This record gives sequence, structure tokens and C-alpha cells, in this order.
Amino acid sequence: MKTLETVYTPRLLPLYDLTGTCVVVIDILRATSSMCVAFDTGIERILPVSTPEECALFKDFDFLTAAERNAEKLRGYDLGNSPFEFQNPLLKGRKLAFTTTNGTKAIKQARQQGAAEIVIGSFLNITALQQHLQNQNRPVVLLCAGWKDKYNLEDTLFAGALAYRLLEAFSTTDDATLAAIDLYMQHSNDLEGLVRKSSHAQRFKLLHRGTDDVHFCLQQDYTALVPKLEGEYLVAQRTQGEGGRAGSL
Amino acid sequence: MKTLETVYTPRLLPLYDLTGTCVVVIDILRATSSMCVAFDTGIERILPVSTPEECALFKDFDFLTAAERNAEKLRGYDLGNSPFEFQNPLLKGRKLAFTTTNGTKAIKQARQQGAAEIVIGSFLNITALQQHLQNQNRPVVLLCAGWKDKYNLEDTLFAGALAYRLLEAFSTTDDATLAAIDLYMQHSNDLEGLVRKSSHAQRFKLLHRGTDDVHFCLQQDYTALVPKLEGEYLVAQRTQGEGGRAGSL
Repeated sequence: MKTLETVYTPRLLPLYDLTGTCVVVIDILRATSSMCVAFDTGIERILPVSTPEECALFKDFDFLTAAERNAEKLRGYDLGNSPFEFQNPLLKGRKLAFTTTNGTKAIKQARQQGAAEIVIGSFLNITALQQHLQNQNRPVVLLCAGWKDKYNLEDTLFAGALAYRLLEAFSTTDDATLAAIDLYMQHSNDLEGLVRKSSHAQRFKLLHRGTDDVHFCLQQDYTALVPKLEGEYLVAQRTQGEGGRAGSL
Repeated sequence: MKTLETVYTPRLLPLYDLTGTCVVVIDILRATSSMCVAFDTGIERILPVSTPEECALFKDFDFLTAAERNAEKLRGYDLGNSPFEFQNPLLKGRKLAFTTTNGTKAIKQARQQGAAEIVIGSFLNITALQQHLQNQNRPVVLLCAGWKDKYNLEDTLFAGALAYRLLEAFSTTDDATLAAIDLYMQHSNDLEGLVRKSSHAQRFKLLHRGTDDVHFCLQQDYTALVPKLEGEYLVAQRTQGEGGRAGSL
């Protein structure tokens, strides 16, 4: 049986051997949620980059740029990190260079540690992702991006929701996965209530009074696409399943 | 209001500034449980040491020695890491050099990072510890020893139990503490059921069929002593409270 493990922050990732694994990168508030929206809107590819400076360079090569640090959009870039921005039809067919506080760093670290496959997870594509993971044959590692290498509630909650769906197809014996499933089970009737208690949601409340990114990012199956790293780029991949809105893409 | 934070593994400790903090080191299965038992039995002081080789040196200086790696007692030392071994009356008035896979390492790391006070926590001294933390004025960091730097259930469960008792006296806003409290609340009626599912309890089941360390280590208030690091040594400190067995020490 394939194994499933959960890593609560990228700081713990060096403790895991990623050889031959499929790593799911999770940054619910908001990088991986926004990536799912961007592909659903029709963006062609996303280049995760480490620094805002590096991100800015790609303006010269006909990329859109998106940059966020400490939950705020940086000045001088086309986009920040709110999923609503990535619904803009102008994204269709474009390339995007994207840098965020936690999410893009987690993708790069999984890559450096030699993961065989890296895919992007969020509530917005949970059913499509579940189907993809069930249909492939690698051990799976759920990598929570966390907040500046610390544990966070919303990424763990998603890891638990996904792990719960994968229980029959995977062997899950690590304590981190068990605790994530417990957290999800305890709060499955009110995910939003828990996430609103989280430190990151509190951070948002102060910064973004107008929009409701938290509510948006907890919607299930907004899209049937599973973003996947190919070379340096994330591209969209449609699974064989039923997930996602009718007519998306 | 004093703050309370929880760190799930020593690998995450460098993310925290320990200046002026009181750090509670937690290694339920079994180092910090065994330390509480040893002091209750009447040991004079415990020297946490990093390696078995270093531990063995102290035989020449009239120390008892205890050494465990990977949940097994090492050959050639007086004791391993089972709390039952530390009930032996021969420990009374003696000094002990002690090395374990996770617990002694966590103590040393908290010290290196400059914690102002380091105390030892387990279910066996939870009420005395609670009183000590309420009566002192430093911010508190709960440091789970984990398993080889990975997250574990039993240490998190204890962190949650202790944090729950401290809610009124401390401000607790970090996600790791919130999730630990949730885990404890969900399982407060059957702590043993959860811990028996943990990967470390499974490890034990294979190694130690005769004894029941898991059950023993989940007892509350076996002692009213709070072991505390003074210089290089752990020594016992009795709090002003009601916790612990009548007649201990």
C-alpha cells in the first residue's frame, strides 16, 4: 500500500526522504488557492520564484508578475496574492512569475530535495487532487507551507481533509497525519470557524477588510485542475474525475 | 498578560526567541516522565548528557548512568528509560547521568538558545507544573521533544492538556497551541486510546511486551515536584500547591 505522510512546515522537510515521492504543496491562505484560481481562469503557466527582485526581472519577458510578502501585495507588481485577483480574464493565455512568503518557497524546497512529482493542493481542487493521488503509484507527502516555517492551522486542516479522503487508498501511520485528520474531523462542520481563529486569518482581518479571502479559499471544488510542476513551471493538468465546476476552462 | 507558545519539535525551536522565557521540556514517552519519577524516588540531581559515551564517563565520578536510544536501554548502563526503573529505592540520594534519544537533546537545545528557566513536564507532575507556571512571571514556551525531530502525538497531547489549564493566566494565540488544545479536548476522556494509536506506542508494543510504560506515563499527579535546570543539573523543586501523592518525598 502506498504511504501518506504529513509535514507541518518546510523546516521539517529535510527529515524526510523525498526520493520517488509525490509532494503536495499546501498554502491555503493563499498561494496554492490563488494558483488553482489562476489556472482555472486560463493562465498558461506559472513560474514560482524565490524573491521579489527575481520576479520583477520577468516583466521583460512578457510575464505578468505577482508578489506578496507578509500577507500584502508588493508595489510595482501586477498582482498580489488574493484569489480574487486571479479571476481577471486578462490572465488568459499569459505566463506569470509568482513569489509569496511561504508557498513558492515550499515548492522550491520540495524540488531541491528531489521529489519525483510536485502538485498544488487547496480546497478549491480537493476532489481532482484526491483522484490524481489515488490514480498514481508514488508514496505521497503532504507539505504544509506554514507561516515563516511555523505550524499553521489552515494548512494542517486541509492536509487532514485530504488525508481523510485518502485513508482507504493509503497507509497513514505517522503522528502528524493522524493529528491532522483528527483536527479535520473535529471541525468538518465549521472549517471557517476554526480558520478564523487562526493567527493568519487574524493577520488578514487587519490588512484586508474589504474582501473575504478566507471564505473564498475554503470553497471545495472550484476547479477540476491539478497544477503540477514541469521543469521550472507549474502547468495545469485535468484529472479523469468529476470534480470542479461545470464548464471550467 | 504572559504569552504561551507551543513548539512541536526541537527542529522548530530556532524560529523562537527564548530570551527571558521559561521553557517546559516535554518527552512523555518517556524521558521527562522518568525524570519526574526519579526525583520522587529521591534522586539528588540529574545531569542530562548528549551522548552515551559521555554518559559512561560519569561512572568514574560516582554517578548512576541511564542511557536509551531508539526506545531501548543500552548495554553497560545502570538504567534505561522506563519509569518503572526509576522507582528503585537505590536511586535515593544519588546523582544520575542521563542520555535519551529526544528528551535530553531538547533540554540542551533550550539551554543553548538562552532560555531563562528550563523545567521538566509530564502528566506525572502536571498540577505542580501548572502552579509553578502560573506563579512565575515569564512568557512560557512548551517544547515537545518529538521523535527524532518529527512531530509526535503524546507530547502534543500533554502540551494541550497543560495549555488548557493555563488558558486563564496566559495569552495563547499561536496556531500550534490552539491545535494542541483541540487535540486534548477531543481526547480528554481517553488519552490512552489516542496515545496507543501513536507511532511511538506502536514502537513500544514491539519492544516492551512485559511492562506498561504508556499507561504509567499518562497518570496525573504522581508527584508534586517540578524538576528544574540549575547550571548543568536538573534538581527538584517543590511548588506551593496541592498536587502530587500524599507523602511523596
